[in-house]
Amino acid sequence: MLTDIQIAQSCEMKPITQVAGDLDILEDELELYGKYKAKLSPELCKRVCKNKDGKLILVTAINPTPAGEGKTTTTVGIGQAMSKLGHKAIIALREPSLGPVMGVKGGAAGGGYSQVVPMEDINLHFTGDMHALTCANNLLSAAIDNHIHQGNSLGIDPTQIIWKRAIDMNDRALRNIVTGLGGKKNGIPREDGFLITVASEIMAILCLSEDIEDLKERLGKIIIGYTYEGAPVYARDLKVNGAMALLLKDAIKPNLVQTLENTPALVHGGPFANIAHGCNSVVATKLGLKLADYCITEAGFGADLGAEKFFNIKCRYAGLKPDAAVLVATIRAIKYNGGVDKNNLDAPNIKALEMGFANVEKHLENIRKFGVPVVVAINLFHTDTDEEIEYIKERCKSMNVECAISEVFTKGGEGGRDLAQKIVDITNTTKSDFKPLYDENLKIKEKIEIISKEIYGASGVDYMPSALKAIEKIESLGMDKLPICMAKTQYSLSDNPALLGRPEGFKITIREVKLSSGAGFIVAITGNIMTMPGLPKSPAAEKIDIDKSGTIYGLF
Amino acid sequence: MLTDIQIAQSCEMKPITQVAGDLDILEDELELYGKYKAKLSPELCKRVCKNKDGKLILVTAINPTPAGEGKTTTTVGIGQAMSKLGHKAIIALREPSLGPVMGVKGGAAGGGYSQVVPMEDINLHFTGDMHALTCANNLLSAAIDNHIHQGNSLGIDPTQIIWKRAIDMNDRALRNIVTGLGGKKNGIPREDGFLITVASEIMAILCLSEDIEDLKERLGKIIIGYTYEGAPVYARDLKVNGAMALLLKDAIKPNLVQTLENTPALVHGGPFANIAHGCNSVVATKLGLKLADYCITEAGFGADLGAEKFFNIKCRYAGLKPDAAVLVATIRAIKYNGGVDKNNLDAPNIKALEMGFANVEKHLENIRKFGVPVVVAINLFHTDTDEEIEYIKERCKSMNVECAISEVFTKGGEGGRDLAQKIVDITNTTKSDFKPLYDENLKIKEKIEIISKEIYGASGVDYMPSALKAIEKIESLGMDKLPICMAKTQYSLSDNPALLGRPEGFKITIREVKLSSGAGFIVAITGNIMTMPGLPKSPAAEKIDIDKSGTIYGLF
Repeated sequence: MLTDIQIAQSCEMKPITQVAGDLDILEDELELYGKYKAKLSPELCKRVCKNKDGKLILVTAINPTPAGEGKTTTTVGIGQAMSKLGHKAIIALREPSLGPVMGVKGGAAGGGYSQVVPMEDINLHFTGDMHALTCANNLLSAAIDNHIHQGNSLGIDPTQIIWKRAIDMNDRALRNIVTGLGGKKNGIPREDGFLITVASEIMAILCLSEDIEDLKERLGKIIIGYTYEGAPVYARDLKVNGAMALLLKDAIKPNLVQTLENTPALVHGGPFANIAHGCNSVVATKLGLKLADYCITEAGFGADLGAEKFFNIKCRYAGLKPDAAVLVATIRAIKYNGGVDKNNLDAPNIKALEMGFANVEKHLENIRKFGVPVVVAINLFHTDTDEEIEYIKERCKSMNVECAISEVFTKGGEGGRDLAQKIVDITNTTKSDFKPLYDENLKIKEKIEIISKEIYGASGVDYMPSALKAIEKIESLGMDKLPICMAKTQYSLSDNPALLGRPEGFKITIREVKLSSGAGFIVAITGNIMTMPGLPKSPAAEKIDIDKSGTIYGLF
Repeated sequence: MLTDIQIAQSCEMKPITQVAGDLDILEDELELYGKYKAKLSPELCKRVCKNKDGKLILVTAINPTPAGEGKTTTTVGIGQAMSKLGHKAIIALREPSLGPVMGVKGGAAGGGYSQVVPMEDINLHFTGDMHALTCANNLLSAAIDNHIHQGNSLGIDPTQIIWKRAIDMNDRALRNIVTGLGGKKNGIPREDGFLITVASEIMAILCLSEDIEDLKERLGKIIIGYTYEGAPVYARDLKVNGAMALLLKDAIKPNLVQTLENTPALVHGGPFANIAHGCNSVVATKLGLKLADYCITEAGFGADLGAEKFFNIKCRYAGLKPDAAVLVATIRAIKYNGGVDKNNLDAPNIKALEMGFANVEKHLENIRKFGVPVVVAINLFHTDTDEEIEYIKERCKSMNVECAISEVFTKGGEGGRDLAQKIVDITNTTKSDFKPLYDENLKIKEKIEIISKEIYGASGVDYMPSALKAIEKIESLGMDKLPICMAKTQYSLSDNPALLGRPEGFKITIREVKLSSGAGFIVAITGNIMTMPGLPKSPAAEKIDIDKSGTIYGLF
């Protein structure tokens, strides 16, 4: 089989004006970025806001193997398959970060015959959204240090600044730094660090904002740190939220591209799924619903994190009502959850499937708790046996859940016909009765306990003293009436990556609690959360190249 | 009079496809960025390379007042005036940096009725070139620290790394930092710092490269530091110059926009005029010459720095032959050079003009040393008296130099008719006999002495011990056969900003010498060179804003 970049570069793209035209978008509502990318103007959003909403489909997954379950690929494939079935479909994905592209991944725009294109542009600078976010983030940092340097009239305590700088690069050396060295002219020495841009609160804000005004308001609400007296200092106190919003004036506009089979795709926003909620932008998802009959979107990590946060944070804020969810599972990951070592996943093993299915079962139960109909997608791998597939189908049937094979990686939309049809069917036969899992007005600890018990299956929650102190602080600020953004390992339903399958009798330990007051959620952190990855020993960047004819190598 | 942003936003722009069409650019050779910006493809450069070259006009200036002489405004105005006279003209400018936009300036795209538009986009992210440069710069930094962290097989000495990180922001706190703190997992602690992106060697490289292949080759030649044994380590040793070139694949394509009067404008590349050569890209200038009969470009700072480096570095490398130069002067700056305090420049003062004209005279003599015909442009200010203007005209006449009033700030192209006509005339009557001032194969000290004596009028050159040591090192590497990039104050012909007019009997002191082996020049530094500005007490960012209708405030 060809590599992803080979497949992508051999694909026949339609001019994006034509892709837009098929969605009845007017030429004036498009801002072109070359021939195959465009931003969609706020005027379009206004014009179509009275349209009837299409159906919203969430693609999520079981707890994965380290190789991942192929959520993005499946999302793209479903979109392509829906188009093949004659439905007007659009997909809504997150934007890749350059850091991982240069580090391990080499690319993140689907795979095989289910990709969004032009993949090389989407994986590199795309329409500049990440860079605009980086800029806005660092303008705020520069304003903080400048304010202190120029006299510090707000009385910001340099040891209590929580706002960090950002860069869209995997660079471990920037995790912990000391800035402002070199004497009086060069600022005030203090500890700081860089986040990777997608882990910045600004990314979460962009993805939850309804429009430029809402964005500016939320940016102003960011708490950058505390005064010597312990009072919060907001970005608006530094008067730069207007300039930050201006820097993001184009970044908030959704990006339109297409799949390998010319299905329209909105690729917009990409917050981390640990420190943030891990979904593409509200603006893009809402617009997708107005432009097509089916809008297929995804959420980061497994369903315990991705779907939970999609439902409890994104859908709550945006007033979205998902019509169905797709739970992606590989036979390999089910075996992995059944205790098989990751190097032995090729061998058929019904016993392990039996054990591992408990993980699938728990996620299905969870999704049903939100009132959302669900279909299981088996993302086929060439080592899967008929017997194994049959077993999973039987188990799904016994739970009264539809299950379909997906071969969209190797066959594109054609390989997703059955899956797409089952999604269409379920939205026609089963009405979604979506509701968030908890009332955001509950106490912080109550909300964390509901998620931990109901979704993870924990027996209880322990809090480290620093977490308790932070909760107290947030309550004293009166900012506790916000949804919870859990930061947890994606490899287990618990907070211990080694506990596979459907663990029981475990407790969740909350180590840290952080307020993202601009984004509008409270982050509850269960372990070490990586907000700045490092490069591996042989970074992908070493193999990435361009020759004089413009041919690109090393993106895959 | 309206503010710059008010004028810019009330201007009737042509679709950029039409501006391009007027230059006989084919639709397929354009990559649109919205309706009013486009990148020009390498295919266009190939197609038109056989065209006859238009005439190349350099706009430069005398030593300025702190408010500047209005070079960019004059350049834009000349382009507009040429169009009014019925000539096919194009202008080639540098791209603004976001740092100063958020800091003091609020914008840098010309002024009044001689601006390039859409000014708000050009002043913000534009087509993403700065961000791509920042990224490529920081990928190299991440690769350096990662290499050391992963075992340091090249033996890079962490205390001898000269490559710095970059950010497009005014942020003094990042000038001197310590990175890699926090223990073994987080890299190796070492001293580092951030440059503003336009001060990065990568910006100079982009601006001097002929195409993507040349760019990749030059990126590979960057010296990032030295081994424990003192041997140079190149970017290519870290194998990331291919990925860096890929990150710059679009940044190397010139950007096409227009002036307020729809004259086409190439705005591309913007290296600092101290640590680098201060001119827009070679690719854009060369393309401009192929697309129009007159290509009007500018160089940073006064003629002693800007014109000298334009001639000796850019023209030398690119094989360009300028047909004429325009020396911009304000009556105010001439008085300032004649010793008047900057707060008393409004009062008529023929005596000061007489003294200050020595500065004009020296720059005119200098430009003639390069064999380039020159016209003086008096950039009119409302406080200028007829008598003062007449005086300057007489002095120019006595030097046998044409002189014209320019009112392009208040009147647009109409205010530059006389100036443009004189430029056209001189290119028709006086053949340029351009040649660089020195042979790049001379010894480093010989080259520095030629510039210091011939251009600045110095009596000699002193070297600090560190500069001598650096020269020795460069010679031992066999890399001394490169042009010199002088880094000096722009306020005086000397290296002392207080010595105005035409100082004599002074010596130039070279404090530091640095090799930019990728860009291909040797930087000779005479004082403290700012490569990372700070924000002022009240940054422009505090007044910059956008409202819900999309109206922008605070860019001027």
